[in-house]
Amino acid sequence: MLEARVYVIMKPGVLDPQGKAVKSALDSLGFEGLKDVRVGKYFAIKLDDISKEKAMERLKGMCEKLLANPVIEDYKIEILDIKS
Amino acid sequence: MLEARVYVIMKPGVLDPQGKAVKSALDSLGFEGLKDVRVGKYFAIKLDDISKEKAMERLKGMCEKLLANPVIEDYKIEILDIKS
Repeated sequence: MLEARVYVIMKPGVLDPQGKAVKSALDSLGFEGLKDVRVGKYFAIKLDDISKEKAMERLKGMCEKLLANPVIEDYKIEILDIKS
Repeated sequence: MLEARVYVIMKPGVLDPQGKAVKSALDSLGFEGLKDVRVGKYFAIKLDDISKEKAMERLKGMCEKLLANPVIEDYKIEILDIKS
């Protein structure tokens, strides 16, 4: 089995109101020294055994079609080395 | 400036309806071979320059108090090496 991690986050420059809200909540809880908080999504995906190249291609398709909005979001795909 | 990444995901065994919904959406888009999808949150946090130990401690506090629900969620903190 293959395991992949997909990280989706707003492109730099795109307004992130959720991040702003989290930052001000942390500020008001007394956490000091925060410069910036951005919030994204994180997907842990398990796939049948296929080659890493094929998995990467398939995961890119998933990101473009569903997981991310490529107009405003960047994504990063990591494929983990698997035991079993 | 310090940069940290915080990943928050449901503990194994905790039902993840959002992950199930994403999985079935991907299935119905024709992506084959999916075993499991879990959805989590991802925070990119910029902090003032402090030691990594102090930053880690502060970030753990943020996770326990706001970013994660430690009853049902696991979190992982990564502090990146920074230039500038």
